[in-house]
Amino acid sequence: MQELVNILLAYINKSFKRSSKVLDFHYPHQLKEGLEGFSLELPDQPDNLEQLLVDCRDTLKYGVKTGHPRFFNQLSTGLDIIGLAGEWLTSTANTNMFTYEISPVFILMEEVVLRKMHSIIGWPEEDGDGIFCPGGTMSNLYSVLLARFHRFPVVKTHGMSAIPRLALFTSVHSHYSIKKSAAVLGIGSENVIVVRCDERGKMISSELNSSIETAKSKGLVPFYVNATAGTTVYGAFDPLNEIADICEHHGLWMHVDAAWGGGLLLSNKHRVKLQGIKRAHSVTWNPHKMMGVPLQCSTILVKRKGLLQECNQLCAEYLFQPDKHYDVSYDTGDKSIQCGRHVDVFKLWLMWKAKGSEGFEAQINHCLENAEYLYYKLKRRADFQLVFKGKPEHSNVCFWYLPKRLQSTLPSPERDRELHMVAPKIKTKMMEEGFTMIGYQPLEDKVNFFRCVFSNPATQREDVDFLIDEIVRLGCEL
Amino acid sequence: MQELVNILLAYINKSFKRSSKVLDFHYPHQLKEGLEGFSLELPDQPDNLEQLLVDCRDTLKYGVKTGHPRFFNQLSTGLDIIGLAGEWLTSTANTNMFTYEISPVFILMEEVVLRKMHSIIGWPEEDGDGIFCPGGTMSNLYSVLLARFHRFPVVKTHGMSAIPRLALFTSVHSHYSIKKSAAVLGIGSENVIVVRCDERGKMISSELNSSIETAKSKGLVPFYVNATAGTTVYGAFDPLNEIADICEHHGLWMHVDAAWGGGLLLSNKHRVKLQGIKRAHSVTWNPHKMMGVPLQCSTILVKRKGLLQECNQLCAEYLFQPDKHYDVSYDTGDKSIQCGRHVDVFKLWLMWKAKGSEGFEAQINHCLENAEYLYYKLKRRADFQLVFKGKPEHSNVCFWYLPKRLQSTLPSPERDRELHMVAPKIKTKMMEEGFTMIGYQPLEDKVNFFRCVFSNPATQREDVDFLIDEIVRLGCEL
Ligand SMILES: Cc1ncc(COP(=O)(O)O)c(C=O)c1O
Ligand SMILES: Cc1ncc(COP(=O)(O)O)c(C=O)c1O
Repeated sequence: MQELVNILLAYINKSFKRSSKVLDFHYPHQLKEGLEGFSLELPDQPDNLEQLLVDCRDTLKYGVKTGHPRFFNQLSTGLDIIGLAGEWLTSTANTNMFTYEISPVFILMEEVVLRKMHSIIGWPEEDGDGIFCPGGTMSNLYSVLLARFHRFPVVKTHGMSAIPRLALFTSVHSHYSIKKSAAVLGIGSENVIVVRCDERGKMISSELNSSIETAKSKGLVPFYVNATAGTTVYGAFDPLNEIADICEHHGLWMHVDAAWGGGLLLSNKHRVKLQGIKRAHSVTWNPHKMMGVPLQCSTILVKRKGLLQECNQLCAEYLFQPDKHYDVSYDTGDKSIQCGRHVDVFKLWLMWKAKGSEGFEAQINHCLENAEYLYYKLKRRADFQLVFKGKPEHSNVCFWYLPKRLQSTLPSPERDRELHMVAPKIKTKMMEEGFTMIGYQPLEDKVNFFRCVFSNPATQREDVDFLIDEIVRLGCEL
Repeated sequence: MQELVNILLAYINKSFKRSSKVLDFHYPHQLKEGLEGFSLELPDQPDNLEQLLVDCRDTLKYGVKTGHPRFFNQLSTGLDIIGLAGEWLTSTANTNMFTYEISPVFILMEEVVLRKMHSIIGWPEEDGDGIFCPGGTMSNLYSVLLARFHRFPVVKTHGMSAIPRLALFTSVHSHYSIKKSAAVLGIGSENVIVVRCDERGKMISSELNSSIETAKSKGLVPFYVNATAGTTVYGAFDPLNEIADICEHHGLWMHVDAAWGGGLLLSNKHRVKLQGIKRAHSVTWNPHKMMGVPLQCSTILVKRKGLLQECNQLCAEYLFQPDKHYDVSYDTGDKSIQCGRHVDVFKLWLMWKAKGSEGFEAQINHCLENAEYLYYKLKRRADFQLVFKGKPEHSNVCFWYLPKRLQSTLPSPERDRELHMVAPKIKTKMMEEGFTMIGYQPLEDKVNFFRCVFSNPATQREDVDFLIDEIVRLGCEL
């Protein structure tokens, strides 16, 4: 075990070193064929310990260093040492969140952390419930599930055939998990009405209102609106207060998907962007994104106490015996869709102890400063073009790189077709060389553009400079 | 980090030591008030490193040692050092399963492990798909979701209102996750038809057949049957071949919930109990139970290739760009309900390398021998009574303890009422003293009884002896 620890510590050190590569890319067939004795196949007889250590080293070697300061590819980046220590302890404790009986400390920590998050949202003391769940998609699924049950409790026992045809609302730029939830829950993805956004990616609230009216006139029953606080690609914040007004007017459940943007609530400077969030009935907030907590760490926060329990409980007697000797309201397992539930709270709790709320604030402000720095740099350059105007609200910066021959070409469908191929080509070379990583995508009528996101506090301005230079180096001759 | 590692290694050593306690129980209010400087509250300013180490030590101290050889409380027990090493590496790699781009090695390992599991089930080479997901409940939810989509693909887009009222079937002794899935998916828990079991807890297949007929005659559309291989409480195996015949006859999806019993497939001696499993359309198998893999590690295995993808894909462009430079069929993220997905495969892969299939076999046989040992011991005693007749099929042994004054009392409602209170009373004392832990529950007309389960290979006969002595010591005067 100590030898493995040495391997892991060496890896951690390397992850933080700018001179080391972010990844050592291989194609699937190369890895499958087995590289220098690294075979993925499972044996009947045991391998020896040395071989296992080699396997561990190789697994890390051929992976991607998501904690590297030049890894900009996902919303979850970084490698917080305290958070990692928390996760090592969690796996050593190897227990399950369903009952106080086998997780007394973690159950109470969950309560404390959730209460803290409620108060940061601004819900009154007596309100607030919630649970940690495996990812923001599951958190969003919970929100739709709860809203449906709240409106039509009979659905739990009698299903969708006992209730009218439902409609829910979310913006074009929102995360696909809202549609996925509707598909899974039996509502149907086409009953998710997609509301248009302005050019910054914010939901247009008047459009929301008219979509609700239209749905009603078609005989659908609107019950739920998802507002996004920090969209996945643009980092946009929907106008929460306007949306809350509309929800109140129509009597709809308001959910705020702050999976990505929730962290900004910890910043006095930036929390204004989420004004109105306290009016939501439920909130998704993923500490594993902007707060830099190791994966997985996601919450669904619910304003009304008791609803999670009512919606999900089935009172399995083998697990939730009512005749236990302690207060069984601490057996949270019947609140959740899952039975066994991984302990996701401890690493966050420990990080909070280690940084204090102020530490999170500083770290988040720093990430947003990096985004602003990149924005101002790109704005001044002719070989880059920003996808939308104005300073980023979150840490997302979206841009095209223009190779020489496209810089002077006037906009046209032909030019768009060429531009569309630039990002994938650069990305291919970037991954093969392995010094940095950034994602790209098209969106609506915009052809492939890069999205840079900052959530790793280890990233500095020199890394931002490096990213730009690297894109130019790989792309200028395209 | 090294200091934390020392704390963790000391904890691991202690977990294996019989003389150490399994738990040091405190009531919720005691822990919340804070014990000797262990405060759960979250600060604004950072705590210092020493305090954090104390917090880590205390978190472990007030928790439950689920790896202790005398912890019999849940299906997931034990603390496999290689598995733990795997989990430490996983959290250090801190990445996400949605794309090959950021998880090349883990994605390929998932493919290799799933293929191995398919072949163990007995599916032909060309069949088989699957995914790791957060727990057996989610695995079972996937199975119902897939079956519904397979029968009525329109449900994905148009919801349950576009299809007839469905019915699904599972046994009285099956896990509550089937009902929960029906509630979540919008089918409704009352449309889960519960089929009676024989006195060993096995589904009575003739009853299944008549339940299907009855449901049809009421206008419901049967589409899915869950057969359990290793029930939660009795450890019973449903007659898979008989159920498969019925499913074929009626054209229904057959799922086998082998969350708990799947491990037995690795044992040449015991796999006969799952005969017929290869006829299933989908299988839930949790390596985090009988195979002793650290939490969480659960799979849903699906016979038909491509169905997971068709059912769940939404083709989010920001994540699953079709114009990537590698074979994007390795981006498994669109197969899953989740977006971000924790890496659960590595620890299992590493354990498989370390033990070989033969190591798992030996370990599982050993657990079942412990169960048999306990069974024969209890059978001979007048102060214990077995809940059902015959040798256990799995590692579950269910029994009442009869305190002196109940040993000579004839069965009666009054005696049942008294007996019902024995297990909770013993459990209370057991937890307060902390030397061992075992669960209890009522089931159908049976009053509270103990369920002992073996999944920790560290448990030996002396621990079984200890458990019996401890129950007698704590309970004889009741
Ligand atoms: C037979 C069976 N299926 C499914 C489950 C659910 O597994 P999990 O707790 O991983 O969700 C259990 C849990 O005990 C079980 O015993
Ligand atoms: C706005 C938003 N919501 C939800 C999610 C889903 O989070 P997860 O990947 O943890 O499921 C994402 C992920 O990127 C997101 O950006």
